[in-house]
Amino acid sequence: MPGVPPTRFVYLGPEGTFAEQALRTLPGAQRGERTPVATIPEALDAVRGSDADAAMVPVESSVGGAVGVTLDELAEGDPLIITREVVLPISFTLAVRPGVDLQAVAAVAAHPQASTQCRRWLREHVPTATVVEALSNAAAAQAVADGRYDAALCTPASASRHRLVALAEQIADRPDAVTRFVLVGRPAAPLPATGDDVTSLAIYQAQDRPGGLLAVLNELASRGINLTRIESRPSGEGLGRYVFFIDCAGHVDQPRLGEALQGLRRGVFDVRFLGSYPRYRQPGAEPPRVFLPAGTSDADFADAAAWLDRVRAGRQY
Amino acid sequence: MPGVPPTRFVYLGPEGTFAEQALRTLPGAQRGERTPVATIPEALDAVRGSDADAAMVPVESSVGGAVGVTLDELAEGDPLIITREVVLPISFTLAVRPGVDLQAVAAVAAHPQASTQCRRWLREHVPTATVVEALSNAAAAQAVADGRYDAALCTPASASRHRLVALAEQIADRPDAVTRFVLVGRPAAPLPATGDDVTSLAIYQAQDRPGGLLAVLNELASRGINLTRIESRPSGEGLGRYVFFIDCAGHVDQPRLGEALQGLRRGVFDVRFLGSYPRYRQPGAEPPRVFLPAGTSDADFADAAAWLDRVRAGRQY
Amino acid sequence: MPGVPPTRFVYLGPEGTFAEQALRTLPGAQRGERTPVATIPEALDAVRGSDADAAMVPVESSVGGAVGVTLDELAEGDPLIITREVVLPISFTLAVRPGVDLQAVAAVAAHPQASTQCRRWLREHVPTATVVEALSNAAAAQAVADGRYDAALCTPASASRHRLVALAEQIADRPDAVTRFVLVGRPAAPLPATGDDVTSLAIYQAQDRPGGLLAVLNELASRGINLTRIESRPSGEGLGRYVFFIDCAGHVDQPRLGEALQGLRRGVFDVRFLGSYPRYRQPGAEPPRVFLPAGTSDADFADAAAWLDRVRAGRQY
Amino acid sequence: MPGVPPTRFVYLGPEGTFAEQALRTLPGAQRGERTPVATIPEALDAVRGSDADAAMVPVESSVGGAVGVTLDELAEGDPLIITREVVLPISFTLAVRPGVDLQAVAAVAAHPQASTQCRRWLREHVPTATVVEALSNAAAAQAVADGRYDAALCTPASASRHRLVALAEQIADRPDAVTRFVLVGRPAAPLPATGDDVTSLAIYQAQDRPGGLLAVLNELASRGINLTRIESRPSGEGLGRYVFFIDCAGHVDQPRLGEALQGLRRGVFDVRFLGSYPRYRQPGAEPPRVFLPAGTSDADFADAAAWLDRVRAGRQY
Repeated sequence: MPGVPPTRFVYLGPEGTFAEQALRTLPGAQRGERTPVATIPEALDAVRGSDADAAMVPVESSVGGAVGVTLDELAEGDPLIITREVVLPISFTLAVRPGVDLQAVAAVAAHPQASTQCRRWLREHVPTATVVEALSNAAAAQAVADGRYDAALCTPASASRHRLVALAEQIADRPDAVTRFVLVGRPAAPLPATGDDVTSLAIYQAQDRPGGLLAVLNELASRGINLTRIESRPSGEGLGRYVFFIDCAGHVDQPRLGEALQGLRRGVFDVRFLGSYPRYRQPGAEPPRVFLPAGTSDADFADAAAWLDRVRAGRQY
Repeated sequence: MPGVPPTRFVYLGPEGTFAEQALRTLPGAQRGERTPVATIPEALDAVRGSDADAAMVPVESSVGGAVGVTLDELAEGDPLIITREVVLPISFTLAVRPGVDLQAVAAVAAHPQASTQCRRWLREHVPTATVVEALSNAAAAQAVADGRYDAALCTPASASRHRLVALAEQIADRPDAVTRFVLVGRPAAPLPATGDDVTSLAIYQAQDRPGGLLAVLNELASRGINLTRIESRPSGEGLGRYVFFIDCAGHVDQPRLGEALQGLRRGVFDVRFLGSYPRYRQPGAEPPRVFLPAGTSDADFADAAAWLDRVRAGRQY
Repeated sequence: MPGVPPTRFVYLGPEGTFAEQALRTLPGAQRGERTPVATIPEALDAVRGSDADAAMVPVESSVGGAVGVTLDELAEGDPLIITREVVLPISFTLAVRPGVDLQAVAAVAAHPQASTQCRRWLREHVPTATVVEALSNAAAAQAVADGRYDAALCTPASASRHRLVALAEQIADRPDAVTRFVLVGRPAAPLPATGDDVTSLAIYQAQDRPGGLLAVLNELASRGINLTRIESRPSGEGLGRYVFFIDCAGHVDQPRLGEALQGLRRGVFDVRFLGSYPRYRQPGAEPPRVFLPAGTSDADFADAAAWLDRVRAGRQY
Repeated sequence: MPGVPPTRFVYLGPEGTFAEQALRTLPGAQRGERTPVATIPEALDAVRGSDADAAMVPVESSVGGAVGVTLDELAEGDPLIITREVVLPISFTLAVRPGVDLQAVAAVAAHPQASTQCRRWLREHVPTATVVEALSNAAAAQAVADGRYDAALCTPASASRHRLVALAEQIADRPDAVTRFVLVGRPAAPLPATGDDVTSLAIYQAQDRPGGLLAVLNELASRGINLTRIESRPSGEGLGRYVFFIDCAGHVDQPRLGEALQGLRRGVFDVRFLGSYPRYRQPGAEPPRVFLPAGTSDADFADAAAWLDRVRAGRQY
């Protein structure tokens, strides 16, 4: 049975980060207690140590750069599971003190990843401005509020918190840039399948074994399971072992995923289940059409199991 | 539950065939009633119609040529299952009337498949003899007993039945030539697994689908199941469909074969279970070492199933 | 370069067999010399020993039963290659002496494979008649011409050769029953590709290696090559080795087949090329639509080779 | 032919970064001109625009977080190729002004990724110290030199540049943490194969196609090519397309890699070659044993090509 809903949340801070924004999209989190922490390991340790019920951390990001740490933390130490994902479009506001206009912007404060994301925009709109590095979006906004620089590239939340106004909004060189966050809790039975779920796995394999990953993907593909993300990382144990992080479509309670997971468990060095959770859907988005190859629906699995029972009992046909 | 042991047997006749010899190797058949029939379809129809409990027919043969008929009969019509296999080395006796020696042999009566199997031997030992075709081993022996020809290439049983003596025994150009026979009955739960069993399947597939058979073999190989025989035949329905006859190592009651069978059932046009039965072992032969790839033992399957239960219940680790 | 067209043919006799009928469908054979031989090994030895240029023998048959011998002979000894295939529908004529009608038929002479093919027909049309075994279609016709039996199940050619008349024609329980014959010659460059060709291979593999055949089929499927027939046989060497006979769509001169053959050569114990030849087309039949998976046309192969050259030269894009 | 050796280098700055340290390990770079730039896109644009000959940027990092940007930049825009890799162990120095000891350290300046890497060490050795974020290793050292904080976690180069001394060296919670850097240039023929090379590829695929990646890995595994890294990223074009970044063992000039690349070119939406270059070897390290599956050596490829030529010419055996 799924555990008690979490009420104490931590997130990768400081306040005003995209992680906080991601957390606020969850109805449960709006009622709960939300505490920023300085690093991803601290966030996950708070959950492991029961100082928090769940942590919102980035896991895949065009601008966050924190992916590796999150994955490593999930793959090692006491087990944790992902219970939710939130995918945020990443864009920035150019925030100034009231009354400042674009012509007056000579110095822009920005976290390096914000300036990287907006490089082309800055070149076109404030070609002569200097970009000054800030430690975070919040720090950039603070520095502008303090009058040290003319403008900040930051989140809307940071801008409003420091009473800045927006000269431009939704700035992003790549309009489809997103960061994916996950809500992580202590092990519990996953939420029921919704029909459009993601299952995350960490799979450990011996290195230098041509075809090892092929066998893994075969376990999935032969049951019609679609891979939505894969990333290999050297295992922290430094023993010539790799860990693959895999996201695939489906829920651990579905027979096709259950059979594939058993196949993985048998065939690889180790596999760690990291959670089955609803795929994030943009507000107002249509439910996706889910495509299942022939012979891999739940009904197909039930039919095959019943047929095998008949065959074993000698009641074929 | 396995059915009642058969007591009324038919076999591909006439008396003295290798099929009769195969049937006699089964302890149960020595006590039962044994009736020769003229053709394989008649043998199987006798079982289908309950005129017999089981039929011994050749299924794979270097000399029998009857394989196709047996396979087609098993693949179509009311289902039947294989409950035993017998593998006989195929060699012949050169039988003469008492007192005749090799120099006196000018005409040899033989079924064409017997003379084909012994062609090199005949060329070396009776190079000037004429080979005369006979309809069966028994007919060849009869013709020699009648004085029409000097020698018969036949089975030892046919020779002794017609009071002939052997000038040479175990004649075979290919010393490892064998014929494989199967005992076929009406559907019933298979005999319990012995640890070295064969499972036979007929698998129907749409034609002209590159990779279709690949997917079938993948279902087997990914569970460590070894294929011991495969043969494709055009399906009798003439609808651009193929049927593959597959023998593989293992028993339908084993989890790895059960899972593979379910995968086949889901993935192909149709699959017909043709039986799980003990692999034939030559009298006095050592039990073979059974090789299972890592992760495919019964224990591995049990471990994986238990792990999946824990994961689903949120009790990982 | 393809060799000189053959002019001296042998075929599996006696006269009047389907093999002779198959040979006569070839324009070249109508002008050449055609000699029946008693067995398939004799036919192939005549070619090997240059006593004939080509031999027409059955290779896959619902009624012939000779497949195994042909395959074994092709797989062993001096190499031979298949240069043509002919697929004949297999049906029989019920032949009688002029003036005999169906009611008068009390004894039917037939080769066992002919009576097997026509069992249902005989049961319906001459339910009280006895079936007497004959050594060949020709022998059955001869026996009826001699007045020993009332009717023969035989080929139209055998009937007319013995001046019999047909009471019924094209008798066949399975209307789509066919026998496939191949014309076999000494090694030479194959005929040019026609766009609808077959390539035959004998592939040797170590036994008890799960997934070995899977790797073979993968070499074919990954290049979009369709398998049209497969049969495993224990290798004559009796050394725990299997040989697979495979027919696949395509011609050795095509790049996709060339690449697949090289992959097989590298990956298996041994592979023997048995010929590339035009797929048989029934007279008047439409050319089939040839389906090639995306990325496997000759043009795709040429594009990929040119791209690789550019990449290696540093002229990418 | 490989191009002219580069003499004008850029690297991800500022001075004192691991990227600079990586660049200095290359003999050619020690003689050339080395310029720091602020961001990875700037570094690569400098090469594309011929303002520099080569750029040293991080591509895979436990602490750098810049991977995504580098990959995206390589996958899009004008092509660039990787010509070298450098793998640096990542550890830090705790640097102080001369005379300060561990007991006196109350505030530590550190880039967040440095403090993340050394979290456990800090907790054990300076449990009461406050960690203050800095924008870079160099900025942390500068702040300590300025007397604003007591200690900096930084690189040895940054410490010595600011005349600080080390209280502790090679600090790293994960002793095997590394960052991998690549030297990127304009397209040119790759350096000759050394026998232990890496080839990097960007492979574009349609999304939601179960088994698509499986087919890609199959092209590699069937030629014995070992995958050393894989990462999927949503394609920047936002069109339901994925891009996979793959590193594999081998060199584009080797036949097995050439054949695999052609297979990928034919089978996927698009493939971009990102370079073949020597695998980085730690100074003093033994050359690795290179393991090739049976049938995939250069000699095996040569043998198979020669055999195919013989078969096509009719000179089999």
